[in-house]
Formats: sequence, C-alpha cells, structure tokens
Amino acid sequence: MTGIAPRPTLEAVAARAGVSRATVSRVVNGGDGVREPLVERVRRAVEELGYVPNQAARSLVTRRHDAVAVVVAEPESRVFADPFFALQLRGISKELTAQDNQLVLLLTEGRDDHARVARYLAGGHVDGALVFSLHLDDPLPGLIQQAGIPTVFGGRPGWNGDRNDVVYVDSDNRGGARDAVRHLVGLGRSRVAHITGALDQTSAVDRLDGYRDVMGDADPRLVAEGDFTPGGGERAMRELLDRCPDLDALFAANDLTASSALRVLRERGLRVPEDVAVIGFDDMLPVAEQTDPALTTVRQDIEEMGRLMARLLLRGVEGEPGSVVLPTTLVRRGSA
Amino acid sequence: MTGIAPRPTLEAVAARAGVSRATVSRVVNGGDGVREPLVERVRRAVEELGYVPNQAARSLVTRRHDAVAVVVAEPESRVFADPFFALQLRGISKELTAQDNQLVLLLTEGRDDHARVARYLAGGHVDGALVFSLHLDDPLPGLIQQAGIPTVFGGRPGWNGDRNDVVYVDSDNRGGARDAVRHLVGLGRSRVAHITGALDQTSAVDRLDGYRDVMGDADPRLVAEGDFTPGGGERAMRELLDRCPDLDALFAANDLTASSALRVLRERGLRVPEDVAVIGFDDMLPVAEQTDPALTTVRQDIEEMGRLMARLLLRGVEGEPGSVVLPTTLVRRGSA
Repeated sequence: MTGIAPRPTLEAVAARAGVSRATVSRVVNGGDGVREPLVERVRRAVEELGYVPNQAARSLVTRRHDAVAVVVAEPESRVFADPFFALQLRGISKELTAQDNQLVLLLTEGRDDHARVARYLAGGHVDGALVFSLHLDDPLPGLIQQAGIPTVFGGRPGWNGDRNDVVYVDSDNRGGARDAVRHLVGLGRSRVAHITGALDQTSAVDRLDGYRDVMGDADPRLVAEGDFTPGGGERAMRELLDRCPDLDALFAANDLTASSALRVLRERGLRVPEDVAVIGFDDMLPVAEQTDPALTTVRQDIEEMGRLMARLLLRGVEGEPGSVVLPTTLVRRGSA
Repeated sequence: MTGIAPRPTLEAVAARAGVSRATVSRVVNGGDGVREPLVERVRRAVEELGYVPNQAARSLVTRRHDAVAVVVAEPESRVFADPFFALQLRGISKELTAQDNQLVLLLTEGRDDHARVARYLAGGHVDGALVFSLHLDDPLPGLIQQAGIPTVFGGRPGWNGDRNDVVYVDSDNRGGARDAVRHLVGLGRSRVAHITGALDQTSAVDRLDGYRDVMGDADPRLVAEGDFTPGGGERAMRELLDRCPDLDALFAANDLTASSALRVLRERGLRVPEDVAVIGFDDMLPVAEQTDPALTTVRQDIEEMGRLMARLLLRGVEGEPGSVVLPTTLVRRGSA
C-alpha cells in the first residue's frame, strides 16, 4: 500500500496533547465529561497527527470529508439484481443523508477489483467505510485494516484473526433458522430439506447451523448447496427432489431461493404446502407476498441493519465499540 | 464553493511550459504529433498549475486518483427501482474497470443533496464525473461547472448557457419516437395517444416532439403527462381512456410506462393490439418480452451509452470534444 505512513497511536496523541490516554479516548468517543480546553488540545493533536480511531466505530472527530464509502463485496450486476442490497443501501442512505454525509458507493466487477477499492479507501477520500456481503476468502478485510479507516461490517465477518476491534451489525441468523425448522417439525414434517446460501458467507453457515440444531444428524442428502440466487435455488431444488423424492418440507436460505424452489416444485406436480411445506428467509417484499402460495418466511429488518451500520460508524457506539445482532421473527403465510 | 481557487487557464499552462496554446491543446487531447520533450514540459506545467481541461472530456493527463464519479440525478430509491439505471451503470462499470478506474457512485435522497454531491466532486476525490438523468431546474450542472472537473453527461443537458463545452451521449429520441408513431399510423390507426416521460427531461421532450412530427396538431387530449414510472403510466392511461375512449393506439415514453398501460387496458376490457396497438421505448429486457402481449418498442442501447460515456471521459474524443447520438431501432413484437 504505497503512500500510507504508519498510523499514529492513541499514545502518540496523548503525548502530543499532554493528557492521559483515558482523556484522549473520552474525547475521541464524543468528549463527554472532558473540559473544553482539554477537548481542544486533544482535537488539535488528533488533527496534527492525522490520528484515526483504531479501526473501530468511534465518533469521527477527525472527519473532514463528510463522506462515507459503502462497499458491497459482490459484482455490480449482483448488487442491482438482488433487492437485499437495495434495501440495505436504502437504510444507509437515509441515515447518512440525515447526518449530511455523502454516500460513496464503490462498485466493482468482482473480487479482482478489491485491491483498487482498498486503495481508494486508503486515499483519504472518505471518513469511514461500511462493508457488506463479505466472502471468507476475500482479501478485502485485510486490505481495509491496512487502509486504517473506521469500518463497520454488515454481517459477522468470518475471517480469522483479532476480532476485538471489529464492529458489525448482523441478524440472528441461527435463531431465525431454528424457528423456521421448528415450525416445520411442529407441522408434523419429518423429511425437512435445506437449501443453503453461499457457504463462504457466515449468514449461510449460521442458517445451516440453525437447521442442524433442530434436525441433528438428519439424512445429509436433505441438504443441498445454493448461493442465495434464484438460479442456484432452482438447481439445488432439482438436486434435492432427484435424490430425496419423499421430502415433505423445505427451509430455504433466502426468499429468492425459496421462490425458485416453489417453481420447481410446481413443475414436478407437487403441491405447496400439502406435499411440501416451504419456508424462506428475509421477508423480502414484494417477492415473499407475490409467490403462489405466499411465502412463510423469517423476517429480518434489512433496512434497519443498514441504518444501524451508518449510525454506528457516524456516532460511535456508547462506551466500548461493540456489535449489534438484530432479532428475527417468523412471518406465517400460505407456504407452511 | 469554499476551497476552490480560480482555475488555471490553457494560456497559463502555455506560458509556464513555454509553448503555444495549440501545443498545449494537442497534448491535453492526447499528445498526437507533439515531440516527447514538449509533451513532458506541458504535462509538468499541467501538474504544477493543477490545470483541468475546461469542463470537457479530454484526455485526463492530470489523473491522479484513477477514480470516476457517477451521479444519477434521481433519489436512490428510483436508481434501484428502474432497470434503466442499472443497465447504464453496467456499461460504465465494465468500461471503467477495463481501464482500472474505480467507479464511485454518489447516491442521494433527492435534489436537496446535490450541493453536497458538488462539494464532493470539487474536493479532489475523483478525476472526472459522469452525470445522467438531469432535470431542467436542477442546480447540479452549474455546481459541477464550478467544481471544474471533466464531465460527460448522459442525455443531452437541457439548461441554457454556453453549450460549446458540454459533452454528452444521447439516443436519437426524436427519430425513434417518429418511427414508433409512423408504424402505428402505417397500421391504419388514427387516434394515436402518447404518454410522455417527465417533461423536465430532454429525452421526454424529444420523444413528444417526435410524436408531434408525425401527428401534427392532433387532438391535444390524446397526450397525457407521465413520468417514466409505472405509477405515472397507470394514472396517465386512465386519464386518456376517460377523455378519449375511442383511442386506437398508444405510444408510451418508455417500456415501464407501456407495461402499466397494458394492465389498465386489460382492466378496461380492451384487447391489445386489436382494439389498441401499443409501442414502448427502451427495449428493456425482460420487461418488454414478458408483457402480455410482448411489447413492440423502440430499442436504444442503454448499456452502450454508459460504456461510451466512460470512454469519452477517459480517453477524450478524437480531436475536438463533441457529443454522440446513438441510433434507435424499432423492435416489432405482439403489441403493435
């Protein structure tokens, strides 16, 4: 990463300002309870050294651009095809605009462009970054850490390493999946299949874990790998029906997957919910209401996730940086 | 516009480099036919003075960020709801990525945010801007001119003032509209209605002009104002049927409008094309193929428009800056 000097530390700021580490920390977190002359000294030291709070979502006292980057770690064609991203961006846009911050969406054609994205993030063009839809082997998180700008992730990042400094907003994917599968079992279904999401994403892994929490070591042929897209869902549903024609329920990792599964089931002459009960995940409207029958699904508040990410980045969390996991709820419609 | 010094002129660069104005101009336009030592001297003078070619899409010899801003002058909710924008962005993304440039999409909640967008553009974060879907009373073009960065517009800008320096990519909206209406007249239809687009955009005005080129001063009640959205198309179609129940054809300003008009016609018990022949504009897939009947429409190459905008900005036009108007073609399907 050319052009990036070593990042100044909290200690360096404290020394420059002639105050304690704790005072710097309080100022960086909003200045509550610190006398104004001290606040001023700390702010000046922060400015002079170009100090950026360590990778965490604290109050951005050094903000100069009033601009926040958003990186969706997917090709632009996916960003515009999956309404999930539009909803999350809507939440982010509303919150950033309310704070008069510019939303800077960095689009790519794919992972090969992530080094360039990281260069832009490191280039002093934005005050922080919101990053979502990470995949496990993506170099982006490491590159962002090197870029040294405050970052909030959408979805729990899955990479190994020191996580104390990572701030993220997520849904209770595992709990939501458990609720869905329990509902199917409660309906008397015993051959409950699962189409996963992209298993290099923690949201897909967590939903699979939730399924296993309830089904234990059920027939492993009841699990087929999808990728959150309609095409992936269609392939996986055909696979499942070919190898387990007696399945009587399906939990799909998202609503797009569920809606293409419904089409395949109809094609094969199976009735929903009579022959196969189906549950999705997201409560993505209008998709979930327009399927035939309408989709029973696990609701997560996607727009609110976006809003919270932006809020965490701009205002910092109260006290220590931390992460937020939003609850999910089962929405019952016709398909299960 | 705080922080923006007066822009250095071409003359200043020529004086600094000790060459003629014409030589500077040739270098800025790509350097063809200029000896290398002179090219070097001009480039150095350009760098030292921070000269930016005057609002035009010349070769960006001063590029430092390898990043290009894209501004869609619509609220983000519209950007994600209308596939037109996704297609144009797709063309831009492919071209910028091929040139290893970062696409920086500046999203807004609406026009109130345009001053902030202009501040970002003036802030030295990007090498140029691609701006589309401008509305007539939008202050953005003026603000961008003040920002002093090379800009290419998507669609002919409609504001008054000196247009010599404006570079844009557009489709032949007027010619395409004429083709559509002539086709309807050729089918023997005489009561041809038109639902316009948003009339504060030149594309909508040009399509209305094309309709009038063929229909002359036909019954003015046959024209209803839409806004390129499905909701606007529905309202306009009801209006038209209420006041001209004898209309026998419709030219809609885009496919989204046409597809909601088809729904209204079906609701009223009218058959397409038997009772009312319908033509759209865009050839937006899959929309245009999935309507019932499939839509006869005027095809414009939206993705190519995006690609060309990016190409004009990055490489400059050959010789003098200029604009490009792409041809349209009539695509015949079931609706007319």
